[in-house]
Amino acid sequence: MNMISKIEEALIEYLPSKDCIEKKLIESMEYSLMAGGKRIRPCLVLEFSHLCGGDLNQAMPFACGVEMIHTYSLIHDDLPCMDDDDYRRGRKANHIVYGEDTALLAGDALQALAFEIMSSSATEENAYRATKAVAVLAKYCGAVGMVGGQVIDLTYEDKTANIDVLREMDSKKTSGLIKAACEMGCIIGGATHRQVQAARDFGESIGIAFQIMDDILDVVADEKKLGKPTGSDAGNNKSTYVSLLGLEKCKLLIDELTDKAIKSLENFSGDITGLKDLALKLASRDY
Amino acid sequence: MNMISKIEEALIEYLPSKDCIEKKLIESMEYSLMAGGKRIRPCLVLEFSHLCGGDLNQAMPFACGVEMIHTYSLIHDDLPCMDDDDYRRGRKANHIVYGEDTALLAGDALQALAFEIMSSSATEENAYRATKAVAVLAKYCGAVGMVGGQVIDLTYEDKTANIDVLREMDSKKTSGLIKAACEMGCIIGGATHRQVQAARDFGESIGIAFQIMDDILDVVADEKKLGKPTGSDAGNNKSTYVSLLGLEKCKLLIDELTDKAIKSLENFSGDITGLKDLALKLASRDY
Repeated sequence: MNMISKIEEALIEYLPSKDCIEKKLIESMEYSLMAGGKRIRPCLVLEFSHLCGGDLNQAMPFACGVEMIHTYSLIHDDLPCMDDDDYRRGRKANHIVYGEDTALLAGDALQALAFEIMSSSATEENAYRATKAVAVLAKYCGAVGMVGGQVIDLTYEDKTANIDVLREMDSKKTSGLIKAACEMGCIIGGATHRQVQAARDFGESIGIAFQIMDDILDVVADEKKLGKPTGSDAGNNKSTYVSLLGLEKCKLLIDELTDKAIKSLENFSGDITGLKDLALKLASRDY
Repeated sequence: MNMISKIEEALIEYLPSKDCIEKKLIESMEYSLMAGGKRIRPCLVLEFSHLCGGDLNQAMPFACGVEMIHTYSLIHDDLPCMDDDDYRRGRKANHIVYGEDTALLAGDALQALAFEIMSSSATEENAYRATKAVAVLAKYCGAVGMVGGQVIDLTYEDKTANIDVLREMDSKKTSGLIKAACEMGCIIGGATHRQVQAARDFGESIGIAFQIMDDILDVVADEKKLGKPTGSDAGNNKSTYVSLLGLEKCKLLIDELTDKAIKSLENFSGDITGLKDLALKLASRDY
């Protein structure tokens, strides 16, 4: 079984039983959690944990935890009071299928479930590492991380942002969870302090590269492959890396960031092939 | 300094600095977190931890964590797509002051902050207890707890619920966090398994009594004292303990539940005065 199948099998097992009055809530959580996606964040947790000599079963709750947080953020982002998007990954958005109230609550419940599965997986032996990994994810997904980045995004929705603002926003909004995933994998796997720092650098670089690629794809991609309409940034007069720097400079920047990310893997003595391939794959994706 | 002042001092210290682009988010979190309230849940954490011989400073992040979860749930409950309430505790609801988007995100960030402060407070010595306490809160605030109860509430908004449904809803929606607070205090304080169970029974009983009292106050209270309009349940044709059982039976039930709660404290050898007083005070409150 490949890594993504293992992650998806674990995700579905962590969902509560539908045999309850609030069945619709669980269905709504499952609808978004099992909607596919690249599963980049959980793969990063497992890859870094493995690289540091960690055990797959101990890392899996943290891999699934970060994916649940990512999923809840997408559900809330699509709500009418936020980006008001009717489609996500080529399917109807959660609130279109289940209603705004259930979608809001499904997001809230996915955030709680993430913290539940991570914390309840702890044993007396790895509890201290677990608390550190949970604290990292909670920080990167909160007010000074992902949610903060979303607020910056909303603040600059109808005004021009400069490159520094864009960088801070994406460092929080997009790189936030990616950095969290890299750090968590290291912590659970028993990395040194220096390795955790290197994993954070790796996450920051591929996270920003990921966002620049998102901006490029919004201009050049095939809508069918992408699973969402293109041209939305230009239509909304939104500042993006492409609008501020141009396509060519953006492509160069992605290459630079990917090189930097791969260089930071020199701090690990294990087999870095998986992480190197992932960074290169993200830098050349067309969806 | 009394217990509530200590809790409020700690709450404000845990909030991130406002010296950032996303200042409005932090202000919105603070607006609701520092809006007063009875601080029942954090008091329960501290009381149970103290009863089990725990240290105040170790228990405080868990006390503040449960209050942050409670606060986020109130912000989300008031949103237009949920209960659509413009007022909370005699002040404008969060989304009326900061807008729906920021209110939604402030709720999300408060949930994350709760898990961050609890997990990052762990030391190598108490990490296993911390993971267990975090797992308890995450479970009781998620799909099979508070959020699940909210879904049942929405499901029965426009149809008659029987007493069993009402009981299940309140056991999750209202008692959920109250039970979590009691259990967490015990776990952090180093209680036995039997004591944790007794604390859960205490929480379940005072939680249901609390909800019945809420239903009574919606019929009989002074609006000014209560800080919100009365008569809303009857106006919405909502099934409540009062509509299903009548006022007199409800008052008897509160007394029974309070007696049961106090009886469960017999499992503890320490000074139970604080918890006994709290149960009695909740049973006779007029706001």
